[in-house]
Amino acid sequence: MFELILKNVSKHIKLDDHESAYFTSLLKHKTLKKRQLLLRANEVARYETFVVKGLLRAYTVDKSGYEHVVMFAMEDWWVSDLYSFLTQTPGSQNIDALEETEVLQIEKQDLERLYIEVPRFDRFFRILLQNAFIANQQRIIASISQTAEEQYLAFIKKYPSLEQRVPQHQVASYLGITPETISRIRRSMATVGS
Amino acid sequence: MFELILKNVSKHIKLDDHESAYFTSLLKHKTLKKRQLLLRANEVARYETFVVKGLLRAYTVDKSGYEHVVMFAMEDWWVSDLYSFLTQTPGSQNIDALEETEVLQIEKQDLERLYIEVPRFDRFFRILLQNAFIANQQRIIASISQTAEEQYLAFIKKYPSLEQRVPQHQVASYLGITPETISRIRRSMATVGS
Repeated sequence: MFELILKNVSKHIKLDDHESAYFTSLLKHKTLKKRQLLLRANEVARYETFVVKGLLRAYTVDKSGYEHVVMFAMEDWWVSDLYSFLTQTPGSQNIDALEETEVLQIEKQDLERLYIEVPRFDRFFRILLQNAFIANQQRIIASISQTAEEQYLAFIKKYPSLEQRVPQHQVASYLGITPETISRIRRSMATVGS
Repeated sequence: MFELILKNVSKHIKLDDHESAYFTSLLKHKTLKKRQLLLRANEVARYETFVVKGLLRAYTVDKSGYEHVVMFAMEDWWVSDLYSFLTQTPGSQNIDALEETEVLQIEKQDLERLYIEVPRFDRFFRILLQNAFIANQQRIIASISQTAEEQYLAFIKKYPSLEQRVPQHQVASYLGITPETISRIRRSMATVGS
């Protein structure tokens, strides 16, 4: 159960057996059915979540009731309403399962304890935060400077497996373009490829 | 010269004399005249910068030549084009001095060395990154959900000394509102106060 998360952590820091055991003792295991909510908007995000298996989606709902996908998270990814988690105030994001999903979660207070007991996790989460910041900026820059077609092509190149698993209208919502635009791009790609 | 930066670091981590000496040995001191550029858009941000004295402004210039203020940074603040600094790719921000300014800077490679030699700096910069992330989110949320007046009042409440030191049109640019709107708000505040 802990193999994937320990491998994920080992990308950035080395843990001995004792530290690994302490870390995994703080994790809570949870399974979600397809469409089940992991976090609801206006609730405080108590956990940072690691996806062991399956696929999650974080999204906001605007005043008109429209959903806007903030991010997807599949196996080996971390996900949370980071603002709510860090400030421990009610958040704006919902997180639900697009497939049957298995996660490991660490509570805010346990993470703070982990930083004290195994300070190398400061390094690990510093690097995760850096990567989150970079991804966030890249997304903002892309939405300002790229056409819908360029954004869609970059998405399927960067996340080929997501494009297979996520319904097209949700990819459109993530990119802030219409599903019709994606259909048009796909048709023109099919024509070029034929 | 290092008193303020060591006090800033000590808010989050404790250093012994040897570690403090190592840290300060990596810092480069620089003074800027009013209006002098510290960083130019399309250059790589080589440094993370700490303001010892004075006031800096980070801004982008759009295709029509209009300036958009990204942030201000006065004494005891850290500033950088973080995306450019973290990825070591050309950035989009200019940073210049609004007053005669004195800074301490640490180069990317020296910071990486510092993380290795004094791992508690992982903690320090994890916390700085968290705070940057939170501030960023709060600003986005405010720009979506607050009126121009609410944003301006929140700004002068949060940063009373900045409001005294920064020209009104630059505050307007930071908040994404017109200078005329600020004038109108200030007139109505003066009327209420009279």
